[in-house]
Order: sequence, then structure tokens, then C-alpha cells
Amino acid sequence: MNIPETMKAAVLFDFGDLRVTEVPVPPIGYGEVLVKVNSVAICGSDPAIVAKGWKGYPKLGEFIPGHEFTGVVAATAPDVIEFRVGDRVAVEPHKGCMRCENCLRGYYTTCLNYGNYELGHRHYGFSTDGAYAEYAACHINTLHNIPESIAFEEGALLTGAGTVLYGYERIGWVGAGETVVVTGPGAIGLMSAHIAKILGAGRVILTGTREERLAVGRELGVDITINVRETDPVKKIMELTGGIGADMIVECTGQPGPAAEALNMVRKNGRISYNGIYHEPVTMGLDKIVQWNLTITGPKAEGKLNLARAIPLMADGRMNFKPLITHTFPLEEINQAFDTFTGRIGGAIKVIVKP
Amino acid sequence: MNIPETMKAAVLFDFGDLRVTEVPVPPIGYGEVLVKVNSVAICGSDPAIVAKGWKGYPKLGEFIPGHEFTGVVAATAPDVIEFRVGDRVAVEPHKGCMRCENCLRGYYTTCLNYGNYELGHRHYGFSTDGAYAEYAACHINTLHNIPESIAFEEGALLTGAGTVLYGYERIGWVGAGETVVVTGPGAIGLMSAHIAKILGAGRVILTGTREERLAVGRELGVDITINVRETDPVKKIMELTGGIGADMIVECTGQPGPAAEALNMVRKNGRISYNGIYHEPVTMGLDKIVQWNLTITGPKAEGKLNLARAIPLMADGRMNFKPLITHTFPLEEINQAFDTFTGRIGGAIKVIVKP
Amino acid sequence: MNIPETMKAAVLFDFGDLRVTEVPVPPIGYGEVLVKVNSVAICGSDPAIVAKGWKGYPKLGEFIPGHEFTGVVAATAPDVIEFRVGDRVAVEPHKGCMRCENCLRGYYTTCLNYGNYELGHRHYGFSTDGAYAEYAACHINTLHNIPESIAFEEGALLTGAGTVLYGYERIGWVGAGETVVVTGPGAIGLMSAHIAKILGAGRVILTGTREERLAVGRELGVDITINVRETDPVKKIMELTGGIGADMIVECTGQPGPAAEALNMVRKNGRISYNGIYHEPVTMGLDKIVQWNLTITGPKAEGKLNLARAIPLMADGRMNFKPLITHTFPLEEINQAFDTFTGRIGGAIKVIVKP
Amino acid sequence: MNIPETMKAAVLFDFGDLRVTEVPVPPIGYGEVLVKVNSVAICGSDPAIVAKGWKGYPKLGEFIPGHEFTGVVAATAPDVIEFRVGDRVAVEPHKGCMRCENCLRGYYTTCLNYGNYELGHRHYGFSTDGAYAEYAACHINTLHNIPESIAFEEGALLTGAGTVLYGYERIGWVGAGETVVVTGPGAIGLMSAHIAKILGAGRVILTGTREERLAVGRELGVDITINVRETDPVKKIMELTGGIGADMIVECTGQPGPAAEALNMVRKNGRISYNGIYHEPVTMGLDKIVQWNLTITGPKAEGKLNLARAIPLMADGRMNFKPLITHTFPLEEINQAFDTFTGRIGGAIKVIVKP
Repeated sequence: MNIPETMKAAVLFDFGDLRVTEVPVPPIGYGEVLVKVNSVAICGSDPAIVAKGWKGYPKLGEFIPGHEFTGVVAATAPDVIEFRVGDRVAVEPHKGCMRCENCLRGYYTTCLNYGNYELGHRHYGFSTDGAYAEYAACHINTLHNIPESIAFEEGALLTGAGTVLYGYERIGWVGAGETVVVTGPGAIGLMSAHIAKILGAGRVILTGTREERLAVGRELGVDITINVRETDPVKKIMELTGGIGADMIVECTGQPGPAAEALNMVRKNGRISYNGIYHEPVTMGLDKIVQWNLTITGPKAEGKLNLARAIPLMADGRMNFKPLITHTFPLEEINQAFDTFTGRIGGAIKVIVKP
Repeated sequence: MNIPETMKAAVLFDFGDLRVTEVPVPPIGYGEVLVKVNSVAICGSDPAIVAKGWKGYPKLGEFIPGHEFTGVVAATAPDVIEFRVGDRVAVEPHKGCMRCENCLRGYYTTCLNYGNYELGHRHYGFSTDGAYAEYAACHINTLHNIPESIAFEEGALLTGAGTVLYGYERIGWVGAGETVVVTGPGAIGLMSAHIAKILGAGRVILTGTREERLAVGRELGVDITINVRETDPVKKIMELTGGIGADMIVECTGQPGPAAEALNMVRKNGRISYNGIYHEPVTMGLDKIVQWNLTITGPKAEGKLNLARAIPLMADGRMNFKPLITHTFPLEEINQAFDTFTGRIGGAIKVIVKP
Repeated sequence: MNIPETMKAAVLFDFGDLRVTEVPVPPIGYGEVLVKVNSVAICGSDPAIVAKGWKGYPKLGEFIPGHEFTGVVAATAPDVIEFRVGDRVAVEPHKGCMRCENCLRGYYTTCLNYGNYELGHRHYGFSTDGAYAEYAACHINTLHNIPESIAFEEGALLTGAGTVLYGYERIGWVGAGETVVVTGPGAIGLMSAHIAKILGAGRVILTGTREERLAVGRELGVDITINVRETDPVKKIMELTGGIGADMIVECTGQPGPAAEALNMVRKNGRISYNGIYHEPVTMGLDKIVQWNLTITGPKAEGKLNLARAIPLMADGRMNFKPLITHTFPLEEINQAFDTFTGRIGGAIKVIVKP
Repeated sequence: MNIPETMKAAVLFDFGDLRVTEVPVPPIGYGEVLVKVNSVAICGSDPAIVAKGWKGYPKLGEFIPGHEFTGVVAATAPDVIEFRVGDRVAVEPHKGCMRCENCLRGYYTTCLNYGNYELGHRHYGFSTDGAYAEYAACHINTLHNIPESIAFEEGALLTGAGTVLYGYERIGWVGAGETVVVTGPGAIGLMSAHIAKILGAGRVILTGTREERLAVGRELGVDITINVRETDPVKKIMELTGGIGADMIVECTGQPGPAAEALNMVRKNGRISYNGIYHEPVTMGLDKIVQWNLTITGPKAEGKLNLARAIPLMADGRMNFKPLITHTFPLEEINQAFDTFTGRIGGAIKVIVKP
């Protein structure tokens, strides 16, 4: 491909000041590939990053956010034999240093050298430049080929799918036939509910406050929805499970109330996966963990290559996130895209930006 | 229900001599239920049991085989609060003594008191009477309610489904998106291939020698079939996986050749589940287990309540075993049913006997 | 053995009113054994049971508490082939119904029929009669032979050891060479620290407020003790681990402060086992579970036969709980024994009652 | 440190022709450290490498074998912040490419780019130069600090300890109190038996043919030894376990007979870890894997940083491999060292070479 010297990119000039401007196309180093970005999904963390940065974020005036994306390989470093120009790829945002104890054990999303560029760590759109741009420099460890059957737009949601799958991997996968409760019908909650079914859950129960989101859940295969404004979810779930509780709770609200309530919905020997972002402390009846023999885990992002696991599921149509993609904007309108996303304008769930 | 004093049953009078006769309806004890049998599926082990018995089989002239079955609760012992007359149920054949170390740890299919009736062990159709009869006495530990959406005939295949699921549980479930190879398109192989997909496998590859069976596999969702009479399966699988090998092999032929060959199809750090019945010793390149960091397990029957796990999957139609049910016979024609099954007459896969 | 008709027992006549009196020797049923009680250890839950009962406790005026004990088999029911009169045994307090889903899966300490005597559940000293008596009727599922090398007194601490081991089993055992922090030098904390070392921990760090208890910890093999009245444990542990945190935290204080603080002591991808009794809710920085990829479990008592696991370790002297046994009283002085225990009189840690 | 330009090294000039000569000190690249080698242990694989090379071995006339070693950091590459000149280190031989799927998941000992130097893979003494030399260039991923309490000679056995520990990690660690059988009292077998006890095994049983080796086992803490020339090990183990079998078998002979026999020593639901090198195919009664619900794994070398796990255990004296170190030779006498090792001259177990 013919690579220009400069490109359009959305640069964070100051907190809250994200603007599209012309910047140099990034160089690529050992093990890296230049990706021509096609589609970037706005993540729930993006507005927060724009508002106040992130641990170790690049210099204001240079920092390009954006981390859920797909594109096409435009150039490769000399050592790269794994990818070729023209390959369609999805990108995972985390690249570990590959020399700390966590990376060596396979836990690169919790790299002990987080933010240390010299030692090789990258976190696109967080601690290093990301994808709201025409091109992005990406290490091969973060790239996965996607087939033609995956549109670039839906492919941008593979990062979210990878996080959901890692959550299930960490909690020991979904046991076949299990009753799984997902709390919170945000993007991650809806994906979690959809994917539980794909992995063999028996019944999937989705709780939430917004009827239109619960309806999307039903469209995605949820068996039972509970509007917590009308129905006490704990009481209802106990009723649905013969007084025993659900096999697994996947907490996706990030709110203290539901996070604590998860302990009251789960069965003895049950499992809870905390998948939200918990800004506030949670006051919990911890004793139940002991008395009821519970197991609790949380997943740090799309670890252990779980983005890759999602690809065949999306490729053959079992994983269908099209109902989640409500809006698409060109890069120039990125601020409108953010406003639509944060204001949930027009029922926005996932909003795609196309550089 | 009105329980008669006698019933029709297929009794093993001598090795190879199975005949329908009139016998007393069995009494029920503490924790037991009398099941009016509706449908019994012939298992691959049944012809062998008829031919030469089984470890600790009941007295010839009294022994009633048959262990994959469904029916309706006809009577309950006084202590039974878990089931009511009229309940539709599927039955798992193993009931542990519930006092040995294995039963206490949840491994009741490998009960250390196998065959010890006094200490409470039961194995319907193997070491105690089974289901080729109008009624069967069953302990509540072995019973599972099935909804109306599951026909009794298809429900009789839940025992097989439970074995397949236990195989997946023991090997750590199917990792989402994994490439799974199933060898041998017998009933267990076909179920394994179908269920791998239900549990989130990426690609499922089925190998075998009979084209019509491979076609059933494709009907059940298999992505790729390999006729090993025409194509070298190891070579083909390596080709399909970029030279790396499959994530998991589910060996269902029971034959020494494919059992050994599984080691050549699997990837480094891959997993092999041996699910066949291996009558002969297998000569294996064991070194690969060490050098390639492999994990190998085998499941003893439908352990850890895996029959129960299969029920919601069959109830909502994801698990569809109807293509496997090729023939149905009344109890009186049980020998014809056996002949059809063992001779694979008319493409027989699973044959149902209806008392 | 010659079994008398009556025996001395400590009966709970009213809340707070525990008195030694003469009662009938209990009968034994199917699968049961009569144990001549030798030594009973007072558990931290005993004073609470005496003060206000327990879920489903037997009738006041009849209820005999006590559940950490050893003795000798005095009589066996006709079906019992597993034990013989004269056998020295340690007893675990939980006996599941062996017919609910949890018992069938091996989770008998979280039996779904807890407290249901008719369906077979027993919890000695909690929901059924226990061991502050000359004799106790015990189901064989709860009995384990102990060799001569284990004194009855020390053997009474095997129940606690079993709980500690189950905690380690549920959290995935101790990884060889790991740095383990145990918070709280009560009996369970001291046992946890001692056992971590026996299971191959690298460094064991014990935190607490009482210097004399920390000294017992060092006697039991703890590498480093931290008096939290003098030293900030989080800061110290981070310093000791090069800023990374400990591999595992075993929380044994039962207090909200340390329970929340555990999240600040553990490494990324670390594990926390909550082993205390948490009477109050705990306010936690739950986000760390997600961002740091943590795993959390709690053990319900000496599940999965973990009391049995402790026996060979105590038998050959590796597990040495003698320093924990500070006092011994005859049954007649049980109230003095309780006072000594609850008042920590004379540095009391574990107090033995001998019927 | 003052680094010379040339050094003494044992170079493989032709198969079977290993000679000490003067060669250039190796240069170090990104992420690498120059180690002044102190002690190298001869591994069972070394004589085979000298005799006929290894997959992808370096050019004859240049190749320096040797891969179990300790030394002192003599120089560091500019990027290296993890180690300093003067650090005492133990080295693990495997360094993954850190870009293939296996390395990303933490399985660097089964790197998919094995032998590909350009992509970053290293296997010291196998596919790249090793340690029978005054200096060795080592990547930081392979280095671990060792304290003064570990002598360099004993530290050279940490590589073997790491392999043993990885075997236990892959099979799910040693369950506390379990009965573990180790077959074959070679170096790995003796280490396995010793370490089983350190990790909390109940009884450790060691089988073998040579009485003097079994005696070393007893010195290292083995509870029971069985000389298979005199006693049928299967019969004896069944007798010792009440007819049930051992919880775990650690097969270390590498011989077809014992490898197959392991299936007859293990209990229902038991586990087998194959840790030998199996040059010949093994004919096994595979059916037992299914009927007895077995789990089988093998470890590829000291994976998942298990060498590091062994360090604290050796540092405080629990792991004591001194009885295994029978001989020490200077580098100049390397061929005599090899002869001593392969001929088991003077009861040789582990032989140390000191450059």
C-alpha cells in the first residue's frame, strides 16, 4: 500500500478538548504493523479518558485515544512473517511487556510494567496512541485476522466480546445448562447475556431498569428479563430457581447496589463474575462467600487472547452484535459521536467512528 | 396411579437369551420411586451385556437390562418429597452408595462400592435391574424432571448426552471458539460433535469411515467432515489448523488406531478426551504427552449430574437428537430391536424400545 | 463394648444455660456408629451457639452442643462394615442428606436440605446433637480413623485443620513457593499459617495485634510477623514483595477493616481466601477484583473430606498443633472451660473438654 | 566486571566429539545479560545431545551445550533494569518467542516458533548455545536471583526442580495428605518424591530396581520404597491403599512397562503425571482412563516460571538436593564428567561441571 506521511487523527489537546487534526503517520518498529483503521467503537471508558486522561496517558496535544477497532494491514516491519499487507484485522488494545512475571505466565492484560513504553508495554488509546485516526501502529501480539464474513463495524465489537469471554474463562466457563443471571443491560451486559447462551447456558436472565434495553436482550436470546423498577429481582430469581438461586451471576452494572445484591441471587457453591467498572466502594455481606462456598472473579479486559476466541463465533453468525450498533459517524464528527454515545441519544448502544 | 402386581419385562435367562415375560412389579424402598417406563434407548453396551453379562450383574432368569430411559412417576416412597406421581422423568443409571470416599466427593459413577447392593449402590441395567420393562424402581438421586417440550423418545437419549457433557466437564469444558475434532461418528461421536458446537466451539471436525454417518454429522452442525478412507485425517487437520493441530480431540471410535492417532492431531498444550470403550490395548507415542504438554481425561458415564445439564438444552431445541432416532420397537420385539441396532439395519443409529 | 443406658452430657437448657446432666445414650440407625467421646475442642462458634442457638438447633432442654471431637467406636449399626468397635476416630460435624444436588456433586457442607433430619442431614452440635457428652451417634460418612500417633486431644483440632485445608483446596491449593499472607492470629489463622508452610508456601507472613499470638505463629513456622498496631501491614507487605503484593491472602480476622484491606495486599492475578466469620457487612474497593484480575473464594467448613487429608500430616508430626492446646477441662467443668476460652484466660487458644 | 574477548567452552565439533576450546565471549542483545557461569549440572538429555544433536541445534564446530546452570551477572544490555552486575542467578533454558499464541498464553516451553532464532526463541544448550563455557548470553526472561543461602552447585539443580514443580502444577498440584507413588529413582524421580512431601503429600512411595537409589529416596523423605525386583509394585500399592490405589502416580522411569503399569496403581478418579522421556511407544490399557475417570498430564520442562517457585524452598533448606550431587569436575574434564554420569560411576546421580 501507498502510505502517506500525514493523516487525520482525533487528538486530545486538553481534558475535554478532542479535535481532529493532521498528524504524522506513526512509524512501526520490530514486531509491528501499520493498520489502516476502518472502524472504531466508542467504549464506555473513552469519555472518561477524554475527560481526565488515564494512568500514564501520552502527552496532551499528541495523544490519540480509541481502542476497539478493525482495519487492514497497510505495512509490516521487516521481521513480521505473521501478517501480510491487505489482511483484515481486529486489534486488542493490550500488549504486555512480555518480560515481567505476569506476561510470562500469560497475564499480559495485568502486565507489571504497565505504561512502561521502553520495556515494551502498550495499551492503545490508554497509555499509548490509539485508533481514532487513519492509521495506527500495532504490535502483532495484538492482531487477529478476521474473515470477510465479519464486517469491519461489527468486528470493532470483538474487543468487548473478548472481555466478556475472558470473564467466562476466569470464572471457569459457563457450565452447560446453567442458569445465568446478567445484571445491567449496557453493552457489556447485553454481550454477556448473548454469549452465555452461545456457550451453553440453560436459562439466561437479564435484569435492568430500561425496558428498551431489556427488549434488545430478548432479541439477543435472553430467556427472561426482569425490570427491577417493577419486580424485586432477588425474589423473582429465587422463585425461578425453586428457592436455590442462580448458578452464576455476571454483574455488569458497576453499581454498588446490584454488586452487593449479587450475593443474594446466587446459589450455594455458585459463582459471581464482576465485570463492571466500580467507581464507588461496595458494602457487601461478605459472610456469604464463606457460608455459601462462593467463587468470585473479575476479568481484566480481553486477556488470554479471548478476542481471538470470539472471531469464529461471530464469523458464522452465532454471535450477532448488529442490534447493538445503533449509530455510525465519520471521524470528523467524533464529538457528535461521543455526545450521541454518552447521552444515549436515539437509543444509542454502540457508536462506530469511521476514520 | 393404579399399580398392577405383575408386568411385562425383558429378562435375561441366559447369555444371549433375552425374552419378554411376566414378572412382579418391583417394590420401592427408602428414597425410591416407581417409574412407568415409556422409552428405552438401546446403548452400545446393551448387546455386550446380553451376550456375556457385566461385573456383578443380577441372577440370570431375573436380570432385566436397559438403562437409557424416560417415563412417568407412578408411585413414591413415603419419604420422597422431591417427586410426585405423574412427573415426567429421565433416569440416570448410576446411583452411588453415598458413603464411600468417591461418592462423598461427588464421583458417584466411580463408586468404590460398585455392585454392593446392601451398601446402597445401584447401576440400573448393569448390576441391578433396569428398564426393559413396564416399571422400574429408581432412586430419586437418579431422576430428573423433563418438561413437555421433550418427547419421551428423545429424552431417552439424555443419558448419552450426559456422558458427553461429563466428558467435556472433565476436560475443562469447551473453550469458546476452539477447534474440536471428534473421531468416530457413532452415537456418542455424533452427540459429541453436536454438543461441542452448542458449548461454543469454533469449528467442529468429524472423522469417520461411513459417508452416511458423516452426513448426519453435518446435519447436526459439524463444520467439516473427513472420510478417513479417502483422506489422511492427521494431514488434513494439520492443514486446516495452519500446521498447529486442533485444540481438543474427542476420541469416540474406541479403536486402537484412532486412539493413538489423536496424539498426532492435537496442538501443543492441547487436550484429548477419550470417550470410547477400548476393548484392546492401545500403543501410543506417550512421549508427546510430556513434550507437547498435553492433558488427557476420560469420563465415566453421565457423572456429576450431567444428565440434568442436558435437559434445558434439549428443552429449547438447541440440542436436537431427533436425527439420531432411526427406529422404534415395542418391548415385545426387543430382539428385533437389538438386531436392527447391532446390524445397523436401515442405517440404524439409536433404536428405541417402548414397553 | 458395654454400653450403658444413660450418660453424662452438657445440655443447653436455655440460652446461656448449659448444664451437665444425665441423659439417655443416643440410639444408632442405618449407617451409624456410637462413639465414646474422648476429647472435644471448643470452637469459636460454640459460645455463640450456647448464647443464642443456631439455625434449626434441637429443642432446648435436650440439645447437646460440641462438634470438634475424637473418640473410640463403641458400637456399630448392623450394616456398618467400614468401622469396628475399638477404632480410634476423628469426627467431622457435617453429614449431608446425600440426595440434593449439592451433596451429589460432593458439596455436602452446603447441603440444600440443611437441618432436615428426615431427609438425612446432620450437623453435630449445630442442628443435631453433638459431643459434649460421653457418647455420640455419628454417621460413618463423618468418621475417619486416626492412628496411635495422634493423641485424642490434638486430634480434636483436625476439624479446624480440615476447614483450613478446604479453604486452600477451594482457592486452588497453595502454589509452591508462593508468598502467603495470613491475617489474624486466632486459632484458624495460626493453623492457616502453619499449614501454608506444610503445603509448600515460600514465605508466610502473619499479621495481628497481639504479640504473644504472633509469637505462637513464629513457633509454628511463620517467616515474618507484622504487628499491625506498630506497622502498616499494606505498606510492609508491598515492601517485602518488591511493590507487587502477596500471591495469596488468607483472611482470618472476620473484621471489616482487614477484610477490605486484603485487596490492597494482594498482587495482580492474586487470590484471596476469606476464612473468617463476618458478622458485619464489609465495604470493599470491588473494582480491584476486575482491574487486578483477582480470584476470591471462601470455604464452608471442612468440606470435601478435608478432615481426612489432615490426618497423615498430623500423624507424622509435620502438622503440630500442640502449641495451640493451652487448657484441658473435664466435662463437669465445661462452663469454666467456656469462660477460659472466651476470656482468653491464661493465653487460652484452644481449650479441650474431656467427657 | 572486566569481560575478556575470548573464553574457554566445550564445543561440539561432531557427534560424540565434545572438546574444550577457546571461543569468543558471546555478545548480548536487547533484554540480555552476560552470565559468568559457575556451575552446570549434566542433564539426562545432555549425553543424547552430544551423541546426535537436537532439533535445530546450532552448527557443529560452534555449538556449546549445557542448560542447567547458575552463575553471576557480568554485564547487562542497556535496556535491562531487572538485573545488576554481581547478581547471583539461576537460569532456565527456555525462552519463548513471546509472540506466538502459546507464549502469549504463558506456555513458553511449548513455543510454536521453537528453534526460530530470528523471532526470538531460545533454548540454551539445545537450539542455541548453552553453558559449558565461562560465559553465556541469557535473556532476562530466563533469569532468577538466588540468595546466598543457595550454593551455586545445588542451584544448578533448580532447573530439574522447576520441571518437577511444573509437573505438579499441570496435574493440579499435590492434594494435601494424598498418597503419591513415584516410579523410577533417577534424578527426576528422586526430586519428585522429595518435592511431593514438601508440597503436603501424605505418604510418598518410591519404586525402583536399585537399592542404593531407593536408599537415597528414603534419605530425601520417602515413606515407603518398593524394590520391583523383589516385590510386585501393583500388588504392594493396592495392599498399602486398602485395595483402592494411589491418589497420584508420577511416572519417572521413561520405560514402557512402568508407564503402562501406572494405570494399575492409581485409584478411581486418580491422576497420572508422565514425567519421563519415552523413547519407545507404550502399550496401554487405555480403557481405564474412561472407566476409572482418570486425569493424565505431562509437563514440558520448567514451564510457567516453576524454576522460580523452587528458589524459596531451596533457600530455607526444605528442598535439599545435596545428597543428589555426587561428583564435581572442572570444565576441562567435561568428558570424564559425562563418562561418570552416563556410567553411573561411583554411584553418580547428578554431576556438576564448573567452568
